[in-house]
Amino acid sequence: MKTCVIGIGYWGPNLVRNFISNSTIKSVAACDINPQRLQFIQERYPMIDVYDDYRKVLADPSIDAVAIATPVNLHYPMAKEALLAGKHVWVEKPLSYTSAHCEELVELADKHKLSLFVDHTFIYTSAVQKIREIVRGNELGDILYFDSVRVNLGLFQHDVNVIWDLAAHDISIMSYVLEQPIVAVVAHGIANYNSHENLAHISLYFAENCFAHFHVNWTSPVKIRRILIGGNKKMLVYDDMQTSEKVKVYDSGVKISTPEGRYDMLVQYRMGDMYAPQIHQSEALAVATEEFVASIMKAKPPLTDGRAGLKVVKILEAADASIKNRGKLIKIE
Amino acid sequence: MKTCVIGIGYWGPNLVRNFISNSTIKSVAACDINPQRLQFIQERYPMIDVYDDYRKVLADPSIDAVAIATPVNLHYPMAKEALLAGKHVWVEKPLSYTSAHCEELVELADKHKLSLFVDHTFIYTSAVQKIREIVRGNELGDILYFDSVRVNLGLFQHDVNVIWDLAAHDISIMSYVLEQPIVAVVAHGIANYNSHENLAHISLYFAENCFAHFHVNWTSPVKIRRILIGGNKKMLVYDDMQTSEKVKVYDSGVKISTPEGRYDMLVQYRMGDMYAPQIHQSEALAVATEEFVASIMKAKPPLTDGRAGLKVVKILEAADASIKNRGKLIKIE
Amino acid sequence: MKTCVIGIGYWGPNLVRNFISNSTIKSVAACDINPQRLQFIQERYPMIDVYDDYRKVLADPSIDAVAIATPVNLHYPMAKEALLAGKHVWVEKPLSYTSAHCEELVELADKHKLSLFVDHTFIYTSAVQKIREIVRGNELGDILYFDSVRVNLGLFQHDVNVIWDLAAHDISIMSYVLEQPIVAVVAHGIANYNSHENLAHISLYFAENCFAHFHVNWTSPVKIRRILIGGNKKMLVYDDMQTSEKVKVYDSGVKISTPEGRYDMLVQYRMGDMYAPQIHQSEALAVATEEFVASIMKAKPPLTDGRAGLKVVKILEAADASIKNRGKLIKIE
Amino acid sequence: MKTCVIGIGYWGPNLVRNFISNSTIKSVAACDINPQRLQFIQERYPMIDVYDDYRKVLADPSIDAVAIATPVNLHYPMAKEALLAGKHVWVEKPLSYTSAHCEELVELADKHKLSLFVDHTFIYTSAVQKIREIVRGNELGDILYFDSVRVNLGLFQHDVNVIWDLAAHDISIMSYVLEQPIVAVVAHGIANYNSHENLAHISLYFAENCFAHFHVNWTSPVKIRRILIGGNKKMLVYDDMQTSEKVKVYDSGVKISTPEGRYDMLVQYRMGDMYAPQIHQSEALAVATEEFVASIMKAKPPLTDGRAGLKVVKILEAADASIKNRGKLIKIE
Repeated sequence: MKTCVIGIGYWGPNLVRNFISNSTIKSVAACDINPQRLQFIQERYPMIDVYDDYRKVLADPSIDAVAIATPVNLHYPMAKEALLAGKHVWVEKPLSYTSAHCEELVELADKHKLSLFVDHTFIYTSAVQKIREIVRGNELGDILYFDSVRVNLGLFQHDVNVIWDLAAHDISIMSYVLEQPIVAVVAHGIANYNSHENLAHISLYFAENCFAHFHVNWTSPVKIRRILIGGNKKMLVYDDMQTSEKVKVYDSGVKISTPEGRYDMLVQYRMGDMYAPQIHQSEALAVATEEFVASIMKAKPPLTDGRAGLKVVKILEAADASIKNRGKLIKIE
Repeated sequence: MKTCVIGIGYWGPNLVRNFISNSTIKSVAACDINPQRLQFIQERYPMIDVYDDYRKVLADPSIDAVAIATPVNLHYPMAKEALLAGKHVWVEKPLSYTSAHCEELVELADKHKLSLFVDHTFIYTSAVQKIREIVRGNELGDILYFDSVRVNLGLFQHDVNVIWDLAAHDISIMSYVLEQPIVAVVAHGIANYNSHENLAHISLYFAENCFAHFHVNWTSPVKIRRILIGGNKKMLVYDDMQTSEKVKVYDSGVKISTPEGRYDMLVQYRMGDMYAPQIHQSEALAVATEEFVASIMKAKPPLTDGRAGLKVVKILEAADASIKNRGKLIKIE
Repeated sequence: MKTCVIGIGYWGPNLVRNFISNSTIKSVAACDINPQRLQFIQERYPMIDVYDDYRKVLADPSIDAVAIATPVNLHYPMAKEALLAGKHVWVEKPLSYTSAHCEELVELADKHKLSLFVDHTFIYTSAVQKIREIVRGNELGDILYFDSVRVNLGLFQHDVNVIWDLAAHDISIMSYVLEQPIVAVVAHGIANYNSHENLAHISLYFAENCFAHFHVNWTSPVKIRRILIGGNKKMLVYDDMQTSEKVKVYDSGVKISTPEGRYDMLVQYRMGDMYAPQIHQSEALAVATEEFVASIMKAKPPLTDGRAGLKVVKILEAADASIKNRGKLIKIE
Repeated sequence: MKTCVIGIGYWGPNLVRNFISNSTIKSVAACDINPQRLQFIQERYPMIDVYDDYRKVLADPSIDAVAIATPVNLHYPMAKEALLAGKHVWVEKPLSYTSAHCEELVELADKHKLSLFVDHTFIYTSAVQKIREIVRGNELGDILYFDSVRVNLGLFQHDVNVIWDLAAHDISIMSYVLEQPIVAVVAHGIANYNSHENLAHISLYFAENCFAHFHVNWTSPVKIRRILIGGNKKMLVYDDMQTSEKVKVYDSGVKISTPEGRYDMLVQYRMGDMYAPQIHQSEALAVATEEFVASIMKAKPPLTDGRAGLKVVKILEAADASIKNRGKLIKIE
C-alpha cells in the first residue's frame, strides 16, 4: 500500500513518521506547495517521494490513499477530489466546517466503496477505550453529566476558532463514550485578539436528564486536559496530563434520604474507594493508522468514519452559530 | 463587646470559635431552636450563654452584635429585625436571595448607623488580597478573562441551588478583584436529584472585551478550586487546593504579529518565567472578625458591607433566572 | 478527670484544646514558667486554671493526669516525678533521649499501675491505621523495603537534632506497621548551622531480607511526607501531603523469570491497577486523647505506651550515635 | 560523517533515530549479533546499513564513529578496540564498571586524538543547563546539600545493580553542577530478587560542609525524579516528572539569630517568593549528538568526555564497594 500525506505543516510530519512505521504501508510520500517543507521532510526521511501539487498525487495511480493535513477550509475540496479520484482518504479533524460538506463526503465514500477516515486521535488512546468500556458497561450507572476542560497556551489557528480546534477532540470523545441523543447546543466565548474566539464554553442539553459542558481556551497559562463523568452509581475522572493513573473511578456519589434538617444533609453524600485501572501505553496515532489500514484491507468503515466525523461537526457547527449570537440555543434534530 | 451567633449548624460553631478568640469581643453567646445544638456548643465552650429563640437575643440589651448563620431564606427577616433592634449584623453569604431584600437591609443599616457585614470569607484570605494587589497594580495588563472552577462532593443545601452556595464565593472574589462593569449574565445547569441545580455554569459579559465564567458543582468526585485570570501582559492562576504556592503569575501571553502562513503561527505565543509570591498563612475568618469589630468600633462600613453583598446577589439572582430558562441572557444595568 | 498540660509552647496549646473538647476530661489546667504563655492560653480559654511551677501541679491532689510538652531534656525528670506523685502521664515524642530513661519510666509506670502514654500522634491517624491493616493482612506480601521522606522548612529545635524531632514520627509508624526485628542502624547527615544535624538519612537492617530508610530535613524548600512500602505482592504509597487519596495500593511488582537476553528483561516488571481506600478524616489528636483517657479508665496500657516509646528511642539513639561517627553500624539486640 | 550504532537493544534505536535526524551525520549504520534486532531496525529505517559483528564495523574504513549501546561489561573492550581502530567513540553511561578501564580509555583517546563521548544525556537537557547556570552564578549561595531521588518500576539490568544504572544519571548531574571535591562515599541497599541491589542509598561527604545523597530504586510503584539543592541563600527543586516548571528556585532559607527560648525559634526560618525559570523544550539526545559531532569536527573534547565519565565511575565504584560492606566508608582521593 502506498500513501501520501498532503500538507507538511505542524501535524503532517507525525503522519509521515507513523505511516513509515506501519508494516502494511510499504511506501510513503509527502506533498506540500511550500518547497521548504518538502526539503525539511526529505532531510528527515530521505527515502520518501515528494509532490508539490496535490493534483499530481491524485493523478498518480500508484497512490492508494491520501492523508489530508491541510487547513480546515481545504479538507472538503481535497477530500472530495481524492474520493472522486478513487483514493482512500484520511482527513484531520474536523472533517470540515459544515455538516453539508461532511454529508457529501460520507455519500461519496459509500458510493465509491472507499475508506473515509477522520483523525479523531484520542479515540485510539487506551484511556478513552477504557473509559468507553467502563461507561458502556454501566459501571457508573446513569450518566448525569460530562464535563470537559482543554486549555493551554496553544497555537492559534488562523482559519477557525478554538471550538473547531480543541473542542473537536472532546466532542469526539463524548460522542464515542456516551450514547444519549443531544437536543440542543449553546456556546459562549470571547475573541480577544482577532475575529476568532480564543476561549469558549459549550453546553449540551440531552433528551434525558444529562448535561455536558466543554471549556476550551488557547490562552491559558497552564495546560489542563480533564474530563469528569458523573454517574448515579460512580464517577470518573480522566486527567490526560498525568503520566500515569490517567483514569480514576470513584465509588462516590449522592445518597438521597428524607431530609430532616440541615445537619442531616451533611451526610447525604457518599465517598468510597477509588481505583485507577492500568492503562497500556501505546501511541494513539499508530493504533489509528492500523485502523485506517485495516478498514482499507477489509473494506469496512473505520471506527472514526465519515459518519462519526459528521456527528462531531454537527455539534461544532451549532456551537459556532450559538457563540456568534451570545448563547442562542440551537436545536439539534 | 458582646456578640451572639444565631444558628449553630455547620458553620455557626466556626463563628463561635473565632469570636471567642478575638480579643475585642469580650463575650460570646449562641442561639438555636434545636436544644441538641445548644448542648453541643456548650460542651465545647462551657462559658458561653445560650438562647433558644433569636427574639430573646434581639431583646437582650447586653448584646451588641449578632451573626446570622441560618438557612438563606431566614437571612433577610432576621437581619432586618436585628437592625431594627439596634444590633450590628454579620450575615453569612449570600446576604439574601433577592436584591430587593439586600437593598432594604443596606438602607436600614445606613439609616441606623449600624454595621452590616456579609461573610464573604475568601476576601479575607491573603491569597485574594495578593491577587487584587496584582490585578489592580496592572501587572497582568488589561483583563481578558476570569475563569473559575469550584467543584467537590459537597453538602446539598436544601433551600437553594449550587449557584447560591458555591458561586457566591467566586463572584465575590471577582467583584473584589475586577472593576469592569458587567452587562449581562447567562447560566446553564442541571438538577439531577431534586428541583435545585447541583451543577451550573455561569457566563458574564462585560462592557469591555472581557469574559468571566464560573463552574460550580456539588457532585464532583474530586475537589477543584481554581481561578485563571488572563491579562494581555501576564496571566495568573489561583489554585486554592495547593497547600503552598496558591497564586502563580505567568509571564506568558500572546504576541500578535503579521501572520505569514501557518508555520509562523506556531510561535505566536510567548512563555516566560513564572513566580509564586509568598502568601502569609492567616485564618481568613479571624481577619474577617477583626474587620467586623473594627467597622463597629470606628463606625465605618466593612470591606464586605451590604453594598458588596448586594452586588454579588444581583449577579446570582440573574444567573438563577437564566438557568431556569435554559440560558436566557439577563441584562444587568 | 482533671488534667494539666505542662509546657505551653508550640504544641501545648493543641493539647489544651483537645483535652477541653474531650467529654471525659472535666477540667483542664495549664502550666508554664513563662507568665506570658499562661496569659496567652487563658485569653483563649478563660475557664482553665494555670500554674507557674510544675511541682505545684504534681502536689495538687485534684490533678489526675499530666501532659508533658516541654523540651526533650525535661521529659524524663518531669515524667519520673509525675509518676512518683501518682499521676498518669502523657509525654510528647520522643519519650526521652536515652533508652535507659525510657526503661526506668516504663518500670515506674508498671509498678505504680499508672498510664504512661507517648504522643506518637500519627499512629492515631486513619491513614496509618489503614496501612497497618493492609500490611498485617498480608495484602502486600513479604515486605521488601520501607522508605520514608519527611522534609520541610521547619522550626529548629535547639536541644536535639532533626532525627529526634522528625524521624521519631516515621520510626513510630514503621514500628507500628512492620513486625520484622531490626538488627542494625546506620545514619548520615549534616549540621549546617550549629552542632545539631538539620538533615539526616537513617538506614535500618533487618533480620530478614528487608531494608528501611528515613530521610529527614528541616531545611527543605518544599514539604514532602511520603512513605513507600514495597512488598513482593503489592506496593503501597502513603503521601500525607495529599488532601485526599493519602494511601494508594499498587498491584505492581517484579516478576522473576529466566532471563533470556536483555530485551526480555524489559517485561520483567508487572504493573496493574491501583486503588485508594477511603480514609475517614478524624483529628488524630482527639483519637489519641480518647486512647489516653480509656487507658486510665480501664487500667490497661495505651496503644502507644512506654514500651512503644522505648522501641522508637532505641532506634533514634542508635541513629544518633551512628551519625556522630560518619555512619558507623550500630547493632540493635 | 558515517556512524554505526553497536547494540540495538532498548536504547540503541533512539541513537539510530537521533543520528539520522542530525544534519552533519550523512550515513547511519547499525550492528547487533541478534538478526531479529537488525531486521527490526531495518524495517523502521530501510536506508541504514547493518552489520552482524562489531569487528566488521571497526574494519570498515567508511565508518568514522561508533556508538556503543551494549551491556556495561562490553563497553570497555569494544571502546578500546574502536579507539585502536581509529574510530571516534560514543559510549552509553556508565563508561565502564572500573575506573582503571576508564583511565585507559581516556589515555587512548588522548593519544590517538579521537573523541571519546560518554552519553550522560541529562547534562544536555535545558533544565540541567539552567541549574548549573543558577548554582555557578552563586544565586543559591554556598551549597549545603544535594539530595536526589530517582525511583520507578524499571527494567532490571542483569549485569549491574541499580547504582550503575540509575545513580549514574544523578551523579553525572551533580558532578556537572557542583564543583566541591568529594572525600568519601558510603552506600546501603538491598537485593531482593537476585545478587544485584534493586534499591540503594548513596551518601557523599565533601571537603567542605556539604552533603549529597542519592536514592535509587528499580522497584518503586511510583516514578519520582527529584533533586533538591539547598544553599545558604536560596534553594532549588528540580522535578523532572513535571511537564512544565521543572526547575523552581525558592527564596527561602534559615535565618540565624540568638535563640531566646523555643517560641522565638519558630520564626527562625524564612520563606519568600518562588520562581520557575522558563525552560526551553529540546530533545537532550539531539543536543548530545550535536556536541559529539562538534567535538569530532573541531577536534576538542566534548562536554561529557572520558574524564567526566571517569569522575562518575570513581564514585559509582566506591558506592558499589561500600554497599557490599554494609556501608563501609570509602575514601576518594
